[in-house]
Parts: sequence; C-alpha cells; structure tokens
Amino acid sequence: MERREGGITAPVGFQAAGVSAGIKKQGKDVALIYSEAPAHVGAVFTTNVVKAAPVLCTQQKVLRQPMARAVIINSGNANACTGAVGMEHAVQMCETTANRLRLAADEVLVASTGVIGVPLPIEQVCTGIQAASAELGSEAANASAAAEAIMTTDTFVKQVAVSVVIDQKTVTIGGMAKGSGMIHPNMATMLGFITTDAQMEPAALQQLLQATVEDTFNMISVDGDTSTNDTVLVLANGQAGNEPLTVDHAEFPAFRDAFRFVCTFLAKQIVTDGEGASKLLEARVTGAASRADARKLAKAVLNSSLVKTAFFGEDANWGRILAAMGYAGAPFDPAKVSIAFTSDQGHIALMEHGEPIQFDEEAASRILHERDIVIEISLGDGDASATGWGCDLSYDYVRINGDYRT
Amino acid sequence: MERREGGITAPVGFQAAGVSAGIKKQGKDVALIYSEAPAHVGAVFTTNVVKAAPVLCTQQKVLRQPMARAVIINSGNANACTGAVGMEHAVQMCETTANRLRLAADEVLVASTGVIGVPLPIEQVCTGIQAASAELGSEAANASAAAEAIMTTDTFVKQVAVSVVIDQKTVTIGGMAKGSGMIHPNMATMLGFITTDAQMEPAALQQLLQATVEDTFNMISVDGDTSTNDTVLVLANGQAGNEPLTVDHAEFPAFRDAFRFVCTFLAKQIVTDGEGASKLLEARVTGAASRADARKLAKAVLNSSLVKTAFFGEDANWGRILAAMGYAGAPFDPAKVSIAFTSDQGHIALMEHGEPIQFDEEAASRILHERDIVIEISLGDGDASATGWGCDLSYDYVRINGDYRT
Repeated sequence: MERREGGITAPVGFQAAGVSAGIKKQGKDVALIYSEAPAHVGAVFTTNVVKAAPVLCTQQKVLRQPMARAVIINSGNANACTGAVGMEHAVQMCETTANRLRLAADEVLVASTGVIGVPLPIEQVCTGIQAASAELGSEAANASAAAEAIMTTDTFVKQVAVSVVIDQKTVTIGGMAKGSGMIHPNMATMLGFITTDAQMEPAALQQLLQATVEDTFNMISVDGDTSTNDTVLVLANGQAGNEPLTVDHAEFPAFRDAFRFVCTFLAKQIVTDGEGASKLLEARVTGAASRADARKLAKAVLNSSLVKTAFFGEDANWGRILAAMGYAGAPFDPAKVSIAFTSDQGHIALMEHGEPIQFDEEAASRILHERDIVIEISLGDGDASATGWGCDLSYDYVRINGDYRT
Repeated sequence: MERREGGITAPVGFQAAGVSAGIKKQGKDVALIYSEAPAHVGAVFTTNVVKAAPVLCTQQKVLRQPMARAVIINSGNANACTGAVGMEHAVQMCETTANRLRLAADEVLVASTGVIGVPLPIEQVCTGIQAASAELGSEAANASAAAEAIMTTDTFVKQVAVSVVIDQKTVTIGGMAKGSGMIHPNMATMLGFITTDAQMEPAALQQLLQATVEDTFNMISVDGDTSTNDTVLVLANGQAGNEPLTVDHAEFPAFRDAFRFVCTFLAKQIVTDGEGASKLLEARVTGAASRADARKLAKAVLNSSLVKTAFFGEDANWGRILAAMGYAGAPFDPAKVSIAFTSDQGHIALMEHGEPIQFDEEAASRILHERDIVIEISLGDGDASATGWGCDLSYDYVRINGDYRT
C-alpha cells in the first residue's frame, strides 16, 4: 500500500469541485463528486430516528439501485427537521445536478450538514450547483476544494488517498470527511465520501464498508450526540481494470487493508479536529470476554465528560476511567482491571489488577502534556479487544456550541 | 403539608453534626447522622459495576438488616477504586463511630464522596468522627453543619424539611443531599439522606423510596457520568407516634406526597447547583406511548452536550432537542412532534406537528435569558408523560473538572 497525494480525485475517472454559494457566512459550501463511469455505491446512514431529508432521499435511491454517477453536498445547513419542504429541496438538489451533468436524477445522491431546523436557501444552493458543475476537474486541487466545501466547524481539510496493486493493476482509494460536532460512537457516523477505481462486486463493497465503518468511524466520539445527517458513501467505478473484487479474491485482503487505512485515517482526523479538541485520545481495551464488551467499554471511557475534561486539564484522574467503564453496560471484574497511559513521553501504570499504583505525578504530567495519548485498559477476562478514538472537552467546545446558529 | 425550617434534624429524635477533619483543603468534611431510637432504613445505591467500598459496606448491612442508628459520611475522598484497603477503611469508619456512640458496628452505615482512586487519610477521618460525635445536636444549625460537610464542588447547602399530619400526629421529613458532578439520570443517584420520625412498615419504606427516587433523583442529569458512590438512605425512627404507615393506610398518600416533595426539592437543588450550571432546565415530555419512552426522551434531551451548550449560549437551537430525542432509543414519529420553551418571560412554539415554526428570535432570547426554563415536548403518541431536570454545560464545568484532583 502506498500513500498518494490528494483525495477523492486520486482514483481514475473521478472529478470533484467545491464552490462558495453563500450558505455559510464565508468559505466554500457546495461540493460535487462526479464519476465518469457508473459507480457501484456502498452506503451507511445515521441510526437517529430523526433522519434529515437528504439522508432519506439518498437512502431510498441506494436501496432501489446501488449505482450512482454523482453526489451533491452542501454545508452550512443540514436540511434536517425542515418538514415537507425539506424533502422537496433535497429532490431539487439532485434534479439540478442531474440537469447540469446530463444524468438521470436517480444517479445523483445528496448529503447536507450544518444548522438544523432552518429551511435551505434553495436558490443559493442551486446557483452553487451550477457553479460547481462548471468547475469539475480531476486535479488534487479539485478534491481539496470539495473537501473544504463540506466543512462546518472543522478547522482543517480531511482527505487521504492510497494505492494498492490488484491483478497487477494499480487500484486507488481516495476519501474525504468532515466532523466535528454531533459525533457519537454508538453506531453513528458523520459525512464521509470514499472513491475508488477498483472494480468491485456490489455486495462485497457494501459488506466491506459496513465492517470497516464499525471499527473506524463508529469507534470515534466527539460529544456523544448522534447526528440526524450522518452518511458514509463509497463509489467504486471500476476504472482500474482489475478483475471484480469479491471477498474470495486472493488480493481482497490488500484492498480491505487499504480501505481500512483510509477510513481509520479519516476517523482519527475527525476526532483530532473535534470541536475545541486539544488532545487525540486512543482507548485500547484488551483482555475482554467479547469484542462487543470491549467496544462498549472503550466508547464509554471516550464519551465521559469527566474523563474528557480531566485530559483537557492534563490531570491523571484515572478513577474516572474506571467509573465510566462501570456504567458502560458491559460486565467486568473491577478487581482484575489494569489501567496505564502512554504517549511519546513514556508509559505510566495507574492501576494493576484492581489496586491503585503509587505513581510519579511529574512523569504523569509529562506524558499527558502530549497531544496524542493512549489509554491502555486490560480486563483479564478473555482475548477480545477493541480500539476507539476520542478527544478532550475544552472551553472551546462550549464556546463553539453555545452560539452555533448565530 | 407544611414547609419547616432546617433539614435532617427537623424530625423528632434525630441529631446531626458536621466538622472539619482536613480531608478537603478547606471546609467541613465529616458529617454524622444519629437517631436516638433504632430506625428502619430504606436504601438505593449506584448501578455502576464499580462500587466504592462504603457503598458495598452499607449495602451489605442494609441487606442483612434494614435497621440503623447512625450514618457516618465524609467528603473530599470517595474511597472508590482503592483496592482492599478501601474496604478496611470503610469498616474502620463504622467501628470508630459505633465505639463513640456505644452502638454495634452493624448499626452504623457509611458513605463517602470526593476524589476517586486515592486511599482515605483514615487517621484524619477518625479524628473527625470523634469530633463529630462530640458535637451532635438536634438544632437546625446541626443539620446545616452536616449538610455542609457532605459538599464537594457544591456551591450551596441542599436541605429541606416538611411536616404532614398522620393519625392526628405531626410527622416530619427532613433531607439533605449533595451534587454536583458525576450525576447521570440512568438509574443513578448521588448522596441523599432523608430522616423521618414517621412510624413506617419497613417494606413500605423501601418501596416508597424506590418509586420516588425513580421520578426525582433518577430524573436529573448534570453530566451523564454515573458515580461509583451514589447512595440515598432514608431513616424512619417512629418517634412521631403515628400508627405504622403501610401503603394501605388512609393517610399514606399525604406522606407519599410530602416524601416526594422532599426528594424533588433536593433533586432540583442538585441540578441547579450542577458543576458550572447557570440554568435549571425542566424537560416535560407528554403524549408518549409509554412512561418508559417519555423518561428516555426527557433524559436524552437533558443529557445532550449540544442541547446543554445551546442553553448556556441562550440560543434557541431546538433542532438539537429533536436530534437528541432521535437517538434516545425510544420510538416516536418526528412528523407528530411539537416543541416549545417556557420561562417567566413567556412561551414560544418552535416546532408543531413536525413542521418548524417561524419564531421571533428576540422573544426567544428573552425567554432563554431566564435561569429556569421548561422544555415542552409533545409526541402525539399516547397518554404517558415524564418530567426530568438538568442544567446547561458551561465554561465553568470544564474549569472545575479539568483540574479536580489538584
């Protein structure tokens, strides 16, 4: 596997654009992804009972036929909780895109992110779609423009591309994503768009996406709030010319690993850029009786406001980690738990087999002063493990969210 | 029902004390409750898998025999995650108290609150117990001293007392509680101590406590973190001389309502004094298919970091309320939901039957500028309802918890 420059236009046959339509106060806010050939689609959506109009619209199309040529995305307005007019607007976004690109409306998928409960400024959005259609291109700059146009409170562009060789053909995967609030690990995601020129069996594509999302996007937490708009789409247009990939293909593992790398990279970028975040926390739970238990425990720790504020304060308050595990809904024996912190500044044990360890507060401070910190939790109950990623809870999270609409 | 001055010493036959033992940097930190006659005990404890030593100690005693004469409580150190020595310390606290008061150790219950994972400074605690035993008294000042001694980051004393007439006897209920972080509504509580001179059947006492806690202490949320130390105890010493109260007693409803008033009062005081809180939020869910659904929805709304920061910012971002309901785990039809805010400044509708309402931002600002705000949520699915209480998420929550141990 090789890292490549750029993002979603790195695979052969994909174009992208990102433009400013005035939906946000400033910056790009309409992104367009275009595949020169029909692409198989894999998709996962929010599990929130309240689904935004674009989620319902895209979900219906993908269920009917998992093929697409384009995805139109706006930031600055989620088109969620917008009643009947919300669905009309989502349909109109697809139709406008289809008209400009000479596609059927069914070949265009849609996603939105931003403020909830306010109708889309649909004329501005459609003007933006016209502009984006005119600016489509396959350069790295086009991918970056699209990645920029899906940002809300994100502070940096999140994109990545890698290549692997399958059937002696270079197969490329590109991806972009946005965070950075309303991110909750409980089967929820965020906006993520992955392109690949691999030729791929549709069923294998959907299965790979679901399995990978479970270990990557679904293992991150910013604030415990599951959005109404979460969507991850993968488009595979087959332009690499490899034999169709199935799970039985000899080189499937290489593609799967590359795909997982892309999803993990984007997921970690999202928590690194979590609203107000100053730390990237990795929780590694080992020795669990089951993988499901390990996942629940990692998520509970990463989701605890008290754990998050302690890391913001660089305070080795490990008892809060054990307390969070205790209400995770997974059984374990507190008397067998060991907890340690690791960063580039070293490793420190805080609890071993249920007994607190006298530790050097200065060494702990040095370790916690780093940006990237690993929380190691060992249960002694079995062989299952899970890893999740989160961030701290800072003054800036409160500032950003105290006055989001205005 | 009549409000009374004071707190846990208002009922006949109860004494209390609160002293400084140097466990906290400043302020009182050892509280003692003493009943002149043997009292029936009702108790509920944290559901956290990780239970602090005093919780395990008290739970075992109450299970063996729900009678007690005294409760010894320290703040400043939770005696949680302290390994084997933690249980020794909890036992030692009971024994020291029993020796001073000439009781059996089994007649003394124990509770602790404060930092996790640090062994108790047991000599200081025992010195504090001696001092508290010497200062026991039944004045209002004694109750206040005890209520002060159980505080951690609480900014004000939480206590209340009421009287009702049962069998032509005046029966009094007093209570005290502490918050104010690690407060999560999911079957968890905090420290609460209720005294009454009512004569009461033990089974009716426990049943009343459980049912009332479910609607009061279990319907509050500060930060979604369920503590390792949560405990609510009620001591009924029978000194009022009424006929033993059972659920079939004609005047049981009057006692039940007074008991519920005490619990509701203390629960609301806890969220009002939630760490960093500047708002008291009341979520009223009506028209639910079941009470369990209504409870889940109210709790999810009150527990959402995004909802809480929006209220801190006095921003009418009602879409976040609907989004939080959507991941609560209770089914409902978004197209039938209505949402409104009410405060002393008026009432404003934000969504009606799934459609957003154009609202006056200035009127919304005036309403949200108040300290006490009611969030009214109507589902149109049935007749069940539930009410919960929470607080906003402010800069001060982050400040308080970023550096709690030091």
